[in-house]
Order: sequence, then C-alpha cells, then structure tokens
Amino acid sequence: MTSSFIACDTPYEAAEIAIFGAPYDSTTSFRPGARFAGSAMRTESFGIETYSPRQNRDLEECHVHDLGDLELPFGDPVKPLEMIYRQTRQIIADGKMPVLIGGEHLVSLGAIRAIAEKYGNLHIIHFDAHADLREDYLGVKLSHACIMRRCHDLLGDGKIFQFGIRSGAREEFQFMKDGHVTTCPFSIEGVSSLKLDKAIPVYLSIDLDVLDPSEFPGTGTPEAGGVSYRALLDAVLDIFTRFKIVAFDNVELAPMLDTSGRSTALACKLLREELIAAQKSISKGE
Amino acid sequence: MTSSFIACDTPYEAAEIAIFGAPYDSTTSFRPGARFAGSAMRTESFGIETYSPRQNRDLEECHVHDLGDLELPFGDPVKPLEMIYRQTRQIIADGKMPVLIGGEHLVSLGAIRAIAEKYGNLHIIHFDAHADLREDYLGVKLSHACIMRRCHDLLGDGKIFQFGIRSGAREEFQFMKDGHVTTCPFSIEGVSSLKLDKAIPVYLSIDLDVLDPSEFPGTGTPEAGGVSYRALLDAVLDIFTRFKIVAFDNVELAPMLDTSGRSTALACKLLREELIAAQKSISKGE
Amino acid sequence: MTSSFIACDTPYEAAEIAIFGAPYDSTTSFRPGARFAGSAMRTESFGIETYSPRQNRDLEECHVHDLGDLELPFGDPVKPLEMIYRQTRQIIADGKMPVLIGGEHLVSLGAIRAIAEKYGNLHIIHFDAHADLREDYLGVKLSHACIMRRCHDLLGDGKIFQFGIRSGAREEFQFMKDGHVTTCPFSIEGVSSLKLDKAIPVYLSIDLDVLDPSEFPGTGTPEAGGVSYRALLDAVLDIFTRFKIVAFDNVELAPMLDTSGRSTALACKLLREELIAAQKSISKGE
Amino acid sequence: MTSSFIACDTPYEAAEIAIFGAPYDSTTSFRPGARFAGSAMRTESFGIETYSPRQNRDLEECHVHDLGDLELPFGDPVKPLEMIYRQTRQIIADGKMPVLIGGEHLVSLGAIRAIAEKYGNLHIIHFDAHADLREDYLGVKLSHACIMRRCHDLLGDGKIFQFGIRSGAREEFQFMKDGHVTTCPFSIEGVSSLKLDKAIPVYLSIDLDVLDPSEFPGTGTPEAGGVSYRALLDAVLDIFTRFKIVAFDNVELAPMLDTSGRSTALACKLLREELIAAQKSISKGE
Amino acid sequence: MTSSFIACDTPYEAAEIAIFGAPYDSTTSFRPGARFAGSAMRTESFGIETYSPRQNRDLEECHVHDLGDLELPFGDPVKPLEMIYRQTRQIIADGKMPVLIGGEHLVSLGAIRAIAEKYGNLHIIHFDAHADLREDYLGVKLSHACIMRRCHDLLGDGKIFQFGIRSGAREEFQFMKDGHVTTCPFSIEGVSSLKLDKAIPVYLSIDLDVLDPSEFPGTGTPEAGGVSYRALLDAVLDIFTRFKIVAFDNVELAPMLDTSGRSTALACKLLREELIAAQKSISKGE
Amino acid sequence: MTSSFIACDTPYEAAEIAIFGAPYDSTTSFRPGARFAGSAMRTESFGIETYSPRQNRDLEECHVHDLGDLELPFGDPVKPLEMIYRQTRQIIADGKMPVLIGGEHLVSLGAIRAIAEKYGNLHIIHFDAHADLREDYLGVKLSHACIMRRCHDLLGDGKIFQFGIRSGAREEFQFMKDGHVTTCPFSIEGVSSLKLDKAIPVYLSIDLDVLDPSEFPGTGTPEAGGVSYRALLDAVLDIFTRFKIVAFDNVELAPMLDTSGRSTALACKLLREELIAAQKSISKGE
Repeated sequence: MTSSFIACDTPYEAAEIAIFGAPYDSTTSFRPGARFAGSAMRTESFGIETYSPRQNRDLEECHVHDLGDLELPFGDPVKPLEMIYRQTRQIIADGKMPVLIGGEHLVSLGAIRAIAEKYGNLHIIHFDAHADLREDYLGVKLSHACIMRRCHDLLGDGKIFQFGIRSGAREEFQFMKDGHVTTCPFSIEGVSSLKLDKAIPVYLSIDLDVLDPSEFPGTGTPEAGGVSYRALLDAVLDIFTRFKIVAFDNVELAPMLDTSGRSTALACKLLREELIAAQKSISKGE
Repeated sequence: MTSSFIACDTPYEAAEIAIFGAPYDSTTSFRPGARFAGSAMRTESFGIETYSPRQNRDLEECHVHDLGDLELPFGDPVKPLEMIYRQTRQIIADGKMPVLIGGEHLVSLGAIRAIAEKYGNLHIIHFDAHADLREDYLGVKLSHACIMRRCHDLLGDGKIFQFGIRSGAREEFQFMKDGHVTTCPFSIEGVSSLKLDKAIPVYLSIDLDVLDPSEFPGTGTPEAGGVSYRALLDAVLDIFTRFKIVAFDNVELAPMLDTSGRSTALACKLLREELIAAQKSISKGE
Repeated sequence: MTSSFIACDTPYEAAEIAIFGAPYDSTTSFRPGARFAGSAMRTESFGIETYSPRQNRDLEECHVHDLGDLELPFGDPVKPLEMIYRQTRQIIADGKMPVLIGGEHLVSLGAIRAIAEKYGNLHIIHFDAHADLREDYLGVKLSHACIMRRCHDLLGDGKIFQFGIRSGAREEFQFMKDGHVTTCPFSIEGVSSLKLDKAIPVYLSIDLDVLDPSEFPGTGTPEAGGVSYRALLDAVLDIFTRFKIVAFDNVELAPMLDTSGRSTALACKLLREELIAAQKSISKGE
Repeated sequence: MTSSFIACDTPYEAAEIAIFGAPYDSTTSFRPGARFAGSAMRTESFGIETYSPRQNRDLEECHVHDLGDLELPFGDPVKPLEMIYRQTRQIIADGKMPVLIGGEHLVSLGAIRAIAEKYGNLHIIHFDAHADLREDYLGVKLSHACIMRRCHDLLGDGKIFQFGIRSGAREEFQFMKDGHVTTCPFSIEGVSSLKLDKAIPVYLSIDLDVLDPSEFPGTGTPEAGGVSYRALLDAVLDIFTRFKIVAFDNVELAPMLDTSGRSTALACKLLREELIAAQKSISKGE
Repeated sequence: MTSSFIACDTPYEAAEIAIFGAPYDSTTSFRPGARFAGSAMRTESFGIETYSPRQNRDLEECHVHDLGDLELPFGDPVKPLEMIYRQTRQIIADGKMPVLIGGEHLVSLGAIRAIAEKYGNLHIIHFDAHADLREDYLGVKLSHACIMRRCHDLLGDGKIFQFGIRSGAREEFQFMKDGHVTTCPFSIEGVSSLKLDKAIPVYLSIDLDVLDPSEFPGTGTPEAGGVSYRALLDAVLDIFTRFKIVAFDNVELAPMLDTSGRSTALACKLLREELIAAQKSISKGE
Repeated sequence: MTSSFIACDTPYEAAEIAIFGAPYDSTTSFRPGARFAGSAMRTESFGIETYSPRQNRDLEECHVHDLGDLELPFGDPVKPLEMIYRQTRQIIADGKMPVLIGGEHLVSLGAIRAIAEKYGNLHIIHFDAHADLREDYLGVKLSHACIMRRCHDLLGDGKIFQFGIRSGAREEFQFMKDGHVTTCPFSIEGVSSLKLDKAIPVYLSIDLDVLDPSEFPGTGTPEAGGVSYRALLDAVLDIFTRFKIVAFDNVELAPMLDTSGRSTALACKLLREELIAAQKSISKGE
C-alpha cells in the first residue's frame, strides 16, 4: 500500500519528476491550516481521473515519484527551510525536476535557495493575490508575507514576474513601481505577452489564492476579485510550453477551510495538468 | 398539509407534468448524499419565488403534481431501477410528462428505459462534467459512472449529445472520437448549433455537476472549470423551445455537501424555470 | 484597545464619515443571521490591508470613525427603526456622512427616513437580488421584503433606481413596469448609463446578495445568477465619482452562513473601497 | 404524499393528540434559527424508529395528527402569538391534546394563554437552562428571555416549577428567592420529589437547551453544565405518569447550528417518547 | 512513504495482527459516509500518541501490519462481501488475527463468514445502538440493518451477545425476547457479568454508534442515550482479558459527519487500545 | 465602544485583575487556530450573563480590566514569549493579578517566567489532557508539547501538579514516575486531596482540552475520556478557595474547530466563574 498522489508511483530512481510536501504554516498571519494540503491532496487525488482531456495525455504515462511530506517542526522557520532546501538540492542532484507542495508560501524560499544555487540567472514567475514583498511583518523577516522580498534579496532586480496581485501594503506597490519586480496587478492576462529566452531557467511559484475565492475558498486569506481556474490553467500551460521551467510549487491550500472539498479537488486537478505539462517539456527537451 | 415542491400542488388527475424523486445513491463512487436531494429541494423551495421574471410566468399557473420520493431500497440497483421504470411508465401512461429528481445519475436509466419503450428513435441531450461512458466501474456495469454507456447500449450510435464534459478516462474520450456519441467537451456553447427535427423525442438529462463548483459545490464529485447558472439556464430554455422534450431529470445534488445551502437553492430555481418552460411547450403543443 | 473596523479610528469630532452597525434581523423571512455582520466585519477586517491598489489610497489617510453597533431590541421593528433614525439624524447634524452596516435590509428604512428629512428630492440607488417592492409580507408592512416599497411610500415615483434584481413576485415586477421605480433587472450594467444631476442627493443601498452566491454565500436568501465583486466594485466606484452620495449602507451579510469566511472578507474589502471613495468625494467637494 | 412527523398520520377527526409547529424566532437574543425546527424534525423523523423499547409501545399505535407549521409573519410577535393562541384553542375545543413545536420559547405564551383560558388553576412545569423571568429585555416585554415572567403575570405566584435552570440575571434569581416561582437550579433531580394533586392541570414546557450542549448543540444559547438525555427522559416520563399533563411543548431546537444532525435526531426521539407517554395517559384517563 | 495506521508498519510476514479496511457503505439507510473511515483514520492517527498510559504499553512494540483499504465496488453488496471474506480467510490462513475497519456494519458479514468457516462454535459479542436484527429492510436482506440477523442465520441461537442496544423495530425486540440472541439493552454494564469458556472463539463487532452521539457524532444514525468512551474502553479491555477474541471490527465511523474531527480521533485511540490488548492476549497465548 | 470581555471594563488603574490575550499558535503540532480564542471570547461573551448563580455574585461587581490581545508575530516563539513576559511583568508591577488567554499552551511560559521572577517557591497547578513534558518535539524545545517540561526546567522538582492527563509519550509518563512532577492521570478528582500551604504562590494553568471533547470540541488535539465542565468548575473553585492563586491562564481554545460555538461559550462562562472567584480571593486577602 502506498499513499502517493494518484499515479505518481514511478520508483524514485526511474522518475524524472519528484514531488514532496512541506507541511509548515507557522508564519501564516491570518487563518492557518496549509500544513494539511499535501496529506489531503494525496487522499483526495483518488477522486479525480488520471487522464487529461485538455492535454490528451494520462498521468500514468508520466514518470513521477511522490516522496511524501517532510516531517517538519513547527514554530521557528529556520530549520524547516533548511530541510526543504536539502530535499530540493538532493532531487536536483539526482537529475529530477523538484515539485513542492506547501504549506504556506514561505516554504518556497527553501526550494528557491537550492534552485538558485544550481542555476545562474534564475527567474521567478509568481501567481498570487498578495504581493508578498514586505521587508518584514511585525518585525519578522521570514514570514509568508515577505517571501518574494526574500527572493528579491537573493536574485536581485528584474528577475521576478508577478501576476494576479490584488492586495498589499502601499510600500509593496511602491516597490513594484520602483521597478524591482515586474507586476501585472489584478489579472493574469499579461502572461501571454511575457517574453523570456528559452535558455533562462524559471521557477514557477503558484500561491493558489490567486484564484477567486468562489472557486478556491480553502485558503487562509481569501481575496475577492481573483482569476478563474480556466484562466489560470491556460496561463500555466502556456508557461510550460514557452519557458524553461526547472521547478515549481503550489502553496497555500488549507483544506479544512473548505468543507465542500472542492478546493482540494481543484488543486489535485491543477497538479495533474502541471505534471503532465512538465513531463511533456522534459520529454521534448531530451 | 402537503410537502410538494413549491406550487406543484395540482391534483394528479389534472396535472400535465408529474415530478417524482429517486433517493438512491448507492453506486456513487466518491462522496454520497444525493439521496437527500428531493427532500431538501421540497423544503427549501419555499425560500424561492414562484414567479419567473426571466420567462414572465408563474409556476402557480402551471399544472404540476409532485408525487414525492419513491421509497427505494439501498445497495443493489436492480430493484430501485425497476421501481423508477414503473413509476415513469405509469406517468406516461397517464398522459403526463415525467420529471425525475435524483439521486445519483444511475437513476436516469430507470426512467430512460420506460421512455425509450414508449418513444421510438429517442435521443438524449446530456449535461454533465463527466462522460459517464465507462463500460464498467471496478467491474460493475450499473454504476453512476456508466449511465450514458448503458443508455448507448439501449439506443445505439448517434442518439446521445453531451455538453460540458470535462472529465473522463481515456477510453471514454476515445468512445466519443469513435463517433458513438456526440460530445462538445469543456463547454455548453454547442447547444445553440445543435439541430434536431422537432418530431424527434428527446430526453433531457442534467447532471448538475456540469455547473462550476463555485456556484454548485453541493455534489459528490466537483470538477473545476464548469459552466455558470446563467449559461446553463440559457441553454436549457433554448432546448425546451427548439426541441421536443418528452421527459427530463436533474440529478446529483448532494445537499449536505454544501452547508451554505446555495446549491439546493439553485437547483430549486432551475427546476422552477424548467417546469415553466416545459408547461409552455406542452401548452403550445396543444 | 478598540474594536473599530480597521483604520476607522479617527476621533468622532474629527471624522468626516461615521460608521455604525444595526444588528437587527427579526423580519428576515428565510435564514436569519445578518445581526452578526457588524461584529464579524470589525473582527475580520484585520485580515485585509488598509491600502487600496485599485484607488491608490490608504484607508488610514481617511477620516472615519466607527461608532460600533447600536444595542437594538429584537422582535417588533418599530423601536429599532426609531433608534437607527436617531443615530443617523445625529450624524448628519454633526456634519458627517453616515454609513450603515446591517442587519437585514429593513434597517435601511431608519436611515433613509433621517436622510430624507434632511435632504429634499432624495434619490436612492439600490443594488439587490430581490425587488423588495412588496406591499406587505404575510400581512406585515415592516419587512425586509418590503423595504423599497416603504421607501417609495416616502419618496414617491421616479426616485428609486434598482440594479441586479433577479427575483420577486409578479406584482413587484408589475410595479416596476408601471413606472413607479426604475429597474434594470438581471444585471448592473445599466449603472454606467444612469444620469443624475450632481446636485441631487443620493442614498446608496447595497443588499450584498446582489453578488453571485458563489462569491458571497453568506447571506440569508442566495439567488443564483448574480454579479461579480469586480463588476459591483466598478459600478460603485463609478457612482461615487459621478453622483452626490450623501449616505450609504451595506446590508444582509450573514457571516455564520459562510463557514469559509470569504463573504465577510469580501464585505470588508468592499467597505474599504467605499470608504476611500466616499472620502475622495468629500475631499473633492470641499 | 404527506410530510407529517413519522407515524403521526391519524386523521385529525380521529386523533387524540394534535401537533403543530410555530416557526417564529424573531425575539431570539443570540443566535436565531429555531424557526426551522418543525420542518427539520418532520424530515429527520424518518431516520428514527417508531417503536420505543423504553416504553415497549409503538408510535404507530397512537392517535396523533400533525397539523404542520403555522405560516407566521416575522418581526412583531403580537400577531404570531395570536395565531398560536387560536390554533391551540381550536385543538382544545376539538377535544384533543395540543403539542407545540417551537420556534423560540416565546411561542409557548400563545399556547399557554389558550390553555389557561380553558383550565382554571393551571400549573407549569418548566425545563430550561435559562430562568426566562426577566421583566423585559432591552425594553421589550415579549421576548424569549421573559416568557416565564409573562406566564407568571398570567397565572400568579406558586404555579410555575422550574428545573435545570443554570443561567440568568441577578434579579431573576431574586425573583425565585422571593418565592414567586419554585426553582430547582442546576439539576432536574427535584422532579422526583415534586408533588401535585392529580386533578391539577399542568402544562409542560421544555426548552431543549436544558440539555447539555454536548448532547444538544443545536440551540441558540448553549449553556455548559446541563442535563443528559437519559435524565431528561426519565423525568419527563415520570411527569406524564404522575401528573395531569393537558398540553406540552418542545422549543428552541435550531437545527442549522448543529451540522452533525444529532440535536434534531434527539428532539425527534424525545418527541416520540413524549407522544407515546401522552397517549398512555390519555388512554388510561378514559 | 507508507500510509498505514500509526505504528502498524510491521512487515506482513512478521505481523501477528493484520488490519484492513472495507470502504463500503451502499446499504446505509440514512446518512452514508462510512466508506471514508479507514482513510481518515490512517491520516488522523498521526495526531495521537502510540503509547497507552492506560495499558502502559506502546503500539510500536506490537506486531501489526496495515493492509490498507480493499478496493471495493459500490452498489450490490454481493461482490464486496466476497472480497472481504477472501481477505479475512487469507489473513487467518497466514496465522494472523484479522482486524476489519468499516465501512458500514454489513461489511462484518464478510469477515464473520470466513471466521465461522475456520472456527466451530463461534460466538459474537456485539456493541451497537441498533439491534440490526431485521429479517429484511425494504425487502433487502443484505442491509446494514440486518447484519446480526444474517449472523444468526449463520450461527444459530444463543451465540450472539448484544450490548448497548437502544433502538429497533418491535419485531427485533421480540426476536430478543424469544431468546434467539442475548441482549442487554440501553447499557453495556452487562459485559462484566458475561461468562464464556476461554476456549470458545469470539468475534468482537463494535458498531461505534454504541457511543453517545455527544462523544461520537460522526456516524450515520446517531442515537441519544449512548455509552461513554471510558465505559466502552473498560468493557472492551475486560473482553480481551477474559475471552478468546479471534478477530474484531470497528464500523460505522463516518468522518465527514463530524467536522470537529473528534469522532475520528476517538476511533483511532480506541483502535490503539484494542490492538495493544489484542497483542497482549496473543503474546500471553503463546 | 469597547471590545473587552463582558463586564471587564474597569479602568486599568482601578482594576485588581488584568486580562490579556496571547494570539500565538505557531508551534501547535496538529490543528492550529488557538490564536483566535481571545477575539472570539470577547465577541461571544455578550451571549452569556454577567451574574453567576453558582457563586451568587456578578462579574460587574468585580474590578477587571481587559487589555485586549497582544499583537504578536508568528513563527519563531522567542519574541512572542518575550512580549508575553513583559506584559505579565508589567501587570504584576502594577499590583494586579495577571490573567492570560491563549493561544496555544506555549504562551503560558512567557507568563510563568515573569511570575517566577516575582515569587519565590512558585508552584503550578496544571489541568490538561496531555502531559506536555517532552524534552523536545521534533528537535524543538519551545513547543506546546514541551511547555510543562520547560516550566520544570525553571522551577525544579516537586513544584508541578498535573490533573486530567490522559495522553503522552512513554518517556513523559516515566518522567512522572521518576517523581519530577506530581500527576493524577485520567481524572481531576485528586484536586480535593491536594494540600499546599496557603502562603505558597500558585500559578493555575488550564489547557481547556482537559475537558471531554463532547463538551469542548473546539481544540486542536481532542482526547476522548476527559472531564466534565461541572467537575472542572468544582475543582477550579475549590482551588481558588484553598490556595493562593497569583495568576492563571486558559489556553488552547480554537474557536473555528467548533462551528456550534459551544466551546467558546463554555470558555466564556468558565472565565466568568474564575474571575469572580479570583476577585473573591483578592477581596478576602485585603
């Protein structure tokens, strides 16, 4: 008996993509619960099909291994980030694409540190309702509200492209206007006009609260006025086709906050589509 | 004191339309609860108006009788399907239009058997998120995941038109491509270009999970990327105007899965619109 | 420690806008709970930002005082309406713009009486799913289902403009057709073509169930087929820009009916935008 | 098709007991929802057995008619109380025992007025967590928090016996100490030592929040430290055996506040036991 | 990564106890959902400790293997019962004690058939709120409401001992009175006075709805007046000490019906205690 | 308008007791949400009475000031604990009794550090379902699962008295047996036989999960087999009468985990009783 995400049961050695979960949500500033995303997605994934009519391909034909959730301590984020960093580094070293399931958005920082170490000139494409560009949150620098600012610390100006942002403090929007990051607020339509050389390595970070709360209520800080699943899927598939995605994450699903279960079901379906798209790009790259 | 759906209190003898419920959901493969749809809709229908501003007509002016829910056993579907078949046959024999409220989608099979017996050349218009074209599900042929395949067994090629389908196994989509059924995947826009001779009898089967889970979370297998109530209503009213609907069903509402109550409220409102449209088409036909 | 809505902590004397809550919902005909809206919004408002990227302005720069909830008795509405009337009259007398948070829609009547007393030729712009134009409801004239009819009693023909209405009894739609009120049913697109002299005082009454239940399930009588937050916000900001809003309300949020919390979060965000827009119009008027 | 409480389908003319619901909760001071009790109990009653192993008798052998819910207006309680009074008076006039299902506790007043008119020297046995002896609540005399004080106005000193009371204002407990009513606070053990001449007519009023919130969470004002279902049932059966119960009520079930459904299930089971006990006492009296 | 119940990760070959789940609930007559019990218990078991202070022993010291859930079809119970029978037979053949996690109560029949085949003179100790002694339910003989009657068909008179029963039809209680089974209704106190020769093989079947709904709301048919966890645990440990338990089950947990999660947590804790007690009895027997 | 706990509106200067909230739950190992306890209790406290029939005293006669919630950062607990320490130290310095509302149990450590600094020979009376005596949890020493071990580090052997403990790892129970702390497992009956010189300063720490989950489901780690509200209240009042309580806390209420609201209502009522008892002991001490 295994408890991997549906159809992600390729042995680790043979896999080209490796999923792992980071069940940490201690810096969540409003309603916590993202720690349960990985576990819920694995269980609920058996309620979806493995076949994608959109891409006409079956997840069972992909080579994905699910490593399960890391066993992370709660509280201080330093150690959890270190553990996520190490897991990501190992997956890269083993020649596979890392896929991170949050947890809160801060967990992405652990993965991005490892990716940036491996790839020079790393860029980030970031979907989110919130800018996450605070210098600190109540004096704390390692917070889910600061994750993209920490990435900027790491990568510098011009490397981060944000879509769907519709909430933030004034200083965050000033930070965008000052040109440190490139932000298309309120919508994700700008994705189609984004140009990046196919040689540039890109990390794709999806805070699922970029979706409208009507379609995705299961998240800690719902922000009205979001994007639809269909629009997000279009954008994500476009990104996998046109850019060189070296790793990606899906974060901030908090399953308990949606008793209808549809947020988890949506997250499972999106991950299926992403994994198939990633596999296609890997296979094409060979 | 009666407990009919609101304003459906015409005596059976005088009625032109007869509603009945089939509270069976034993083959539901994911989250059950559709058995409670009829009961919940009757109670909650008193929260909606009887007047339709859209059609400028009042349900109180229609001649509808609500027979209530059949008392079906759970488990093996053979007997419940037989009971649904008999109830449908009786309603037709009494010269009324049968309207079936699920329960899970398999219950439609009982009604369709009776309708097909009465009407040669029966066609089906089918709204759903799922193809329901499996030959069997875990070895079981009488399953809610196979209902349209069983209808195909009954009616043969070219009789089933599917709209809104966005999930299924590879073999189901292959079955469509092989031309056994006509499927417009992902959307219901194709309804407007559907052409059928007005003499052809049509059964309309609406699995309510064709709706987007944001508008209709109260169903066992929510599939992101669905259609809106407005679009579905437009399509349904168009169908009642242009085709010869001889019976219809609404299935897969699972009220307990939506604690907000809006799924049941939507289902009540949709049924009001359908009943008024059906009454219009019956009156016009006279 | 204060418990005002976020950033609405300007001392009363210095404030230009004064918010108060009217936690009354005794005439609610379906599912009650709107009495808890003010309390929930104050608590949950700390989960949103004070800065509006849409209007590039911060609520902290506005001069708003939150008076809290009135302590209203339940049952007979006569006394609560009188208390709301007095509170509104006092705020106007003190030279501030009154903002009323419901409670059920009937509470608006108390405020509108005070406003109409102060301003001749008062007009009302009304967003709602329901016409609220009944002469009475089960024999009761002071009911949330009759509030706009009572306003019509007060103001006469041609003063009320309704948007988003998609439910009502036949006689209510006849009342519209007879020209007593101006109604754009089913949508709010008509807002942009509404013309009113800038000198005319306007009361803006927003029954939040005008929103689609997918985005706003937390209300007593959800009506499928509503408008989106984005469309509502566009219309509301347009109204504050083009017309002379002298007071406004937001009613019929019932927080307990939405366990996901997104309805309350949306209501908080909308109120932030309205307050900033109101402050802009006040400042411009000076 | 009928929607009576399970097995309460004796024709009115032949019935010895008549149930009716009073779906009014407008004066509820905390969380409303008791209006839905009657409807929920009728639907959910089909989940319990008709046979009582405790009393070795079947509800199907009793002669009970369920009149359904009155259609009461909300808001001002004067008219609803009048309608409840009239219904009760009619049932008595027809020689049957009236059984009232709330709604909030205030509805009992309508019934008690009719009963007191018929029977001189009426006594009340009252189970509740709350004393309900306030002179007024926020200036309102017709409130669910004042119902027993209103009964005292009607019946005078020494007629009301309270059990299970564990909450109230100081003046309410002073009212008890002054001897106007007889109260056994915190428990219901005192029932067994209560002595009343068998000729004295007794109204039994059960506010279901007398039960511990662990067993009965579905009520507007849960008070920790309550009694168990077993203890309450023992006391109630004892009362039906030893005293002359001429009418009774069960109030303050708010089904929506308990998503597990067990509060409604308990209320159905308790009503079954009460009806069987009432029938026994009627049959014995003949 | 494995997804066994906590600490039940002994390899199958080395295990002395083998758990498996039977996620079938198609004959549930009221609210379904027991199919999710095994999955929920495995996930939630990581929220409890492995150490039992009551028995001063750690589950990690026991030799238990968790085989996971069978993949059962829904609808007709014949095939699922056959699959449960085969799994149980295999575990016995491999010299291990089978432990079955429901699913609805009917699943026990599959296990008991295999056990009875192996052991002559099999007795059953049965904890339940419901008698489950119906000859049929709406004409269906394989129903969760008939499971103990089917066991009686198999084992004959005098072999079944029931505790905690507090609900059933008149004919079920007559069946007890006629001496076919031995029933201690309303309580489980009779366990301590039960005498059975230590050589007699006993199957222990625990329908968790024997517990009071206050402690265990997560079940399809909650019955007020149940037993406490403490009392049940005392009785169960006593049974493992004094009798020869050859297999046991825990059924009718429906996790979704208890959003607080405490029903699943209780079920996990009870299973830990049972497994430790079973291991003790096995070790002692060696 | 204030938002203090009901009747806790004595000005700080005049107060003898000062409440404050510590909305931190980042180290919670299972289901978080205790951060919302203070806010929920303040809002919901208006649903209870201020008068205690048990103690025949009214909270309005007590001199309590509610300082509201501290604004604590999430993640690393070092800074939050420092802020709690400082707040507690200030309250003591101002000559008032500090009362801490969690948050998770770890917050108690901040308060206890300040109390221990002020009072030599500090003892702790600890109610809890969990021993909280781990040396570390997944390598983290500042965890809610280690709070009493950290207190032991601070105070040494023989100073901690635990009641109600029914869960823990083997090493925690060994730590008790080794005599470092005094633990009465499974029940709280031992309180009545506890003897402590009236001169000894005592900190009372109540993890509300000591209560049975049936009465108190709103907590992150529900443990079956707990104590009743009545028993806990008896013990707590006894403690205030017989010992010298210098400060106390109530922790681990997670309001969102109990949609019925009764956990928060219970916590409010318990706090009312504690505050009255504390005021009595202070007044007597004068």
